[in-house]
Amino acid sequence: MFSRSSSSITFFFIVSLLAVLINPAISSRASSSFTKHTQHSSIASNCESWRLASETNNAGSWKVVPSRCVNSVKNYITGGQFENDYNIVARYAIAYAKRVKLGGDGKDAWVFDIDETLLSNLEYYKALGYGSEPYDDTKFNEWAVQGKAPAFDASLKLYKALKRLGFTIILLTGRDESQRSVTAKNLRDAGYFGWNRLLLRGKNDQGKTATQYKSEQRSKVVKEGYKIHGSTGDQWSDLQGFAVAARSFKVPNPMYYIA
Amino acid sequence: MFSRSSSSITFFFIVSLLAVLINPAISSRASSSFTKHTQHSSIASNCESWRLASETNNAGSWKVVPSRCVNSVKNYITGGQFENDYNIVARYAIAYAKRVKLGGDGKDAWVFDIDETLLSNLEYYKALGYGSEPYDDTKFNEWAVQGKAPAFDASLKLYKALKRLGFTIILLTGRDESQRSVTAKNLRDAGYFGWNRLLLRGKNDQGKTATQYKSEQRSKVVKEGYKIHGSTGDQWSDLQGFAVAARSFKVPNPMYYIA
Repeated sequence: MFSRSSSSITFFFIVSLLAVLINPAISSRASSSFTKHTQHSSIASNCESWRLASETNNAGSWKVVPSRCVNSVKNYITGGQFENDYNIVARYAIAYAKRVKLGGDGKDAWVFDIDETLLSNLEYYKALGYGSEPYDDTKFNEWAVQGKAPAFDASLKLYKALKRLGFTIILLTGRDESQRSVTAKNLRDAGYFGWNRLLLRGKNDQGKTATQYKSEQRSKVVKEGYKIHGSTGDQWSDLQGFAVAARSFKVPNPMYYIA
Repeated sequence: MFSRSSSSITFFFIVSLLAVLINPAISSRASSSFTKHTQHSSIASNCESWRLASETNNAGSWKVVPSRCVNSVKNYITGGQFENDYNIVARYAIAYAKRVKLGGDGKDAWVFDIDETLLSNLEYYKALGYGSEPYDDTKFNEWAVQGKAPAFDASLKLYKALKRLGFTIILLTGRDESQRSVTAKNLRDAGYFGWNRLLLRGKNDQGKTATQYKSEQRSKVVKEGYKIHGSTGDQWSDLQGFAVAARSFKVPNPMYYIA
C-alpha cells in the first residue's frame, strides 16, 4: 500500500524513470531522438498506465494524483474520455440488470455509492486541481452542505432503469449521518427519487475503513433477506470486502482514492 | 453477462452508436464535421472505454474482441502501451512485496497464474488476430505442448524479486494435469525456477469455472497454513472468489476473457 503521498510520488517517478530506461519501445525512441515530443509521449504513456493501475486497484492506496499526471487527468476528464468510459460502465450495468430474474418480492436490491457515483463533485475537484491536493475533510463538507452537486447523466439513466425494472435501491455513502437531509435534498434536486434507504456513517462507524463500514452495512441488508444483484461505486472500497454484490460496476475516478 | 459473442458484438455496436449520439463532446464534433478522423476518434474512444471496462471487470464475460476494436487492441499490444501497463503493475507488486513482513517460516506465499501472466502466448494470439477469434481448446493445446512461450520480462523480474525476498511461489493454472511436464519445462526454459508447487486441473476439476477451481486450490493452500500475501493473474478469475490474496495484481489482457 502506498499510503503516503510523498512515497507515492517518489515511487511514481522511479517507475517512470525505470519505464523509460527499460521499455525497449520507449528507450529506443529516446536514444534516437530525445525530443520534447518523445518526452511528452513517455509521460502520457506512464500516466495512462498509472490511471489503469489505479482503476484496476493494482496501485493500492494513494493520496494525490502524481504531479506529472495532473495534466493528463485533467485532459482525461475534460476531453470526453472520462464521460465515455463512465457511460459505457453504466450501459453494461443496465444490460446486466435487464438479464437479472427478479424475485418479485421487493428484495432484489442494487446498492449505489453517492459521491462520484450518483452525484458529481467535479466542480469542487476542478477548483482543487483535479486531485492534485490531498483530501480535505473540512473543505469537502463545506462544499457538500451546499447541496448543489449535479447527477452524472449515465448514473441517472441507470438509476431510473433499475427503478423501472423493479429493483430496490439502497444508497450507501461514506458521508456522515449529520448530512442526511442535505444529501437527500441534493439527490432529489439532481433527479433521484424513490430509494428504499439512505445509509450514512453513524456514531459506531467512525474510524472504520470504507471497505469495513460498507461491508457491514451490506451485510445487514443481506440479513434482512435482500439479494444484492448489483452495486455501483467509483471506489473499490464501495464494492469489495464481504456481502458483495453478484456483479460490481466500478465507474472511473482518477481524482482520489478511498481505502 | 455477455456470454455470446454475437450479443456482445451487437451490444458494443449499440453502445458505440449511443455514445456518439449522446456524448456531447463527440456529437458536437460529429455534427460540425463528420470526417473520417472524427469517426476514427469515436471508434478509438469507444474501444478504449471497452478495454477499460474489460480490465476493471465491468464488461463481464466476453468471447471475442469486438470486431471494431481488433485494430485498437493490436495497436495497444504492438505499440508499447500494453508493455508499459504490464511493467507498472509488476512494479507495484514488487513495491508491495517489499513492505510485507514475512513470518520466516516459509509459509508466506505468492500465487501466480501461468498463461499471459508468467508466460506470453502472444505469438499464438497474434496469428489468430489478437483475440478476434473465439478460444479454441484444441488449437491452444497444440501451441502449448510445443512449450515455446517466452516469459514476460516484467513477470520474470517480479518472480525473481519475490524469490529473493523469501516468498514461497505457488503456480496455479487452468492447464490440464496432462500438460504438467511440458509446462514445467517451458517455465524453466523461460527462466522460472524454484516454485513450491505447480497446480494444474485434475480429474475432479473438469467443468468447474476458473474462479471456482482456483479458489478451491487456494483454499487448500491456506488450510495448510500458508498466508497468501499476493496474487498475480491476467484474469479476474485468477484473483477473485474465496481464499483470495491480501493484494491482487491484475496484469492487462485485452485478448480473451475466462470466467
